[in-house]
Amino acid sequence: MTKKKPLILITNDDGIDAPGIRALIDAMRSIGRIVVVAPDQGRSGQAHAITVNSPLRPKLLINSHDHLEYSTNGTPVDCVKLALKIIMTEKPDILVSGINHGTNASINIVYSGTMAATIEGSMEGIPSVGFSLCDFSMEADFGPSIPWITKLVRAILNDGLPKGICLNVNIPVTNDEPIKGMKITRQGEGNWAEEFDHRIDPRGRDYYWMTGKYNGNGHDSDTDEWALDRGYISIQPVTFDLTAHHLLSTLEKQLTR
Amino acid sequence: MTKKKPLILITNDDGIDAPGIRALIDAMRSIGRIVVVAPDQGRSGQAHAITVNSPLRPKLLINSHDHLEYSTNGTPVDCVKLALKIIMTEKPDILVSGINHGTNASINIVYSGTMAATIEGSMEGIPSVGFSLCDFSMEADFGPSIPWITKLVRAILNDGLPKGICLNVNIPVTNDEPIKGMKITRQGEGNWAEEFDHRIDPRGRDYYWMTGKYNGNGHDSDTDEWALDRGYISIQPVTFDLTAHHLLSTLEKQLTR
Repeated sequence: MTKKKPLILITNDDGIDAPGIRALIDAMRSIGRIVVVAPDQGRSGQAHAITVNSPLRPKLLINSHDHLEYSTNGTPVDCVKLALKIIMTEKPDILVSGINHGTNASINIVYSGTMAATIEGSMEGIPSVGFSLCDFSMEADFGPSIPWITKLVRAILNDGLPKGICLNVNIPVTNDEPIKGMKITRQGEGNWAEEFDHRIDPRGRDYYWMTGKYNGNGHDSDTDEWALDRGYISIQPVTFDLTAHHLLSTLEKQLTR
Repeated sequence: MTKKKPLILITNDDGIDAPGIRALIDAMRSIGRIVVVAPDQGRSGQAHAITVNSPLRPKLLINSHDHLEYSTNGTPVDCVKLALKIIMTEKPDILVSGINHGTNASINIVYSGTMAATIEGSMEGIPSVGFSLCDFSMEADFGPSIPWITKLVRAILNDGLPKGICLNVNIPVTNDEPIKGMKITRQGEGNWAEEFDHRIDPRGRDYYWMTGKYNGNGHDSDTDEWALDRGYISIQPVTFDLTAHHLLSTLEKQLTR
């Protein structure tokens, strides 16, 4: 590997074969040296889960000039940990995760393996960005996203990101319209109306498939949903400090006297 | 079930048989009617993972006066979703999760199934509290925690919690000393130094067990680690809005022009 090109760690949660990560890999190869460590199958909805009760096995897939690629049997966060502690001998200049098949705007970030991997990168002090296209289909067209993604990655490689944050980048599907631009946003108030699909197995026992309907509720013009609804890319700065700082003094009065 | 006593939903991530949840169940039975829905085995480190690729099966274990109890094959968050959408016909007055075997202070909250279940409760508008004892042992002594837990649960049943937050309550091990009191805290800057235990299987292939050493780094007197180190219970108010609000304008200048 040459010394000059930036080193880019790539992962996702849809699995190493998903069209989204293959599109991201192609785009990143034009920018730098790449190391891919991604789940060997789809691990959507895994959030920040780690594997502690069974062993992890990285599997080498590609070992060519400027392109190292592994799959693992772990979660997205496992992949980042294995990449940084076992596979890579040099700290990456940036971590990119995705391109996720489907939105990670609003409340979806809480369940997202794509974004958990990104957050894990920021916890390790690496400028980290997760990309999601608002289209769950495996046939989604990632083409219009690519110029925006490469522009953003180059900007972050130049300027870095503030300490302790990463970016949750969601990209709208605008069909024949061009994407209008990028907006810095906050997490909107969408929610999932969970419905379980109740079935009875051949032995007469109940079982349930988790399903549900997502309701985006970003009515305010500073939210991710608002931006996406209007054809803008949403960029949410994300922290792993879950403290509700604005309520510290209220609770002090309420609970500890 | 009587009408007057509060309805308490109980879950955890160490599994339905863990001493921590059994201690919590005993304590909550003195306060109200209880519904327990917990994983059928230990699911530590599962964070906010949900099960979408395999079916969920709740198993009825206890159906007696004021005490309904199920195990499930799902994650802690699955348990909360099944409880609220399938098992319970009435919205609980409070959700309690734990008592976790081991700390969820500092960065541990990000990986915690106990706290993810608690956060899921707050996302559904239920006052929710996660309890953790800073002792990973299965033989941990939960006795000294119980008066503090029942006091806090009664206070929350009386006064509620602000919308959109839950509480991450960590309880120190003080051995023969009494617990000193409760402090409202922010998330400290601890971290895990991951080390993987590298082994080679009988067929000559590499595999890795995730292990690691936790470094608590709560030097500032407003952090959870500071409080715990000095024998206080730490109460962190927790939000599921991951936006780094303080950086919105900085990034606006940096990225979107």
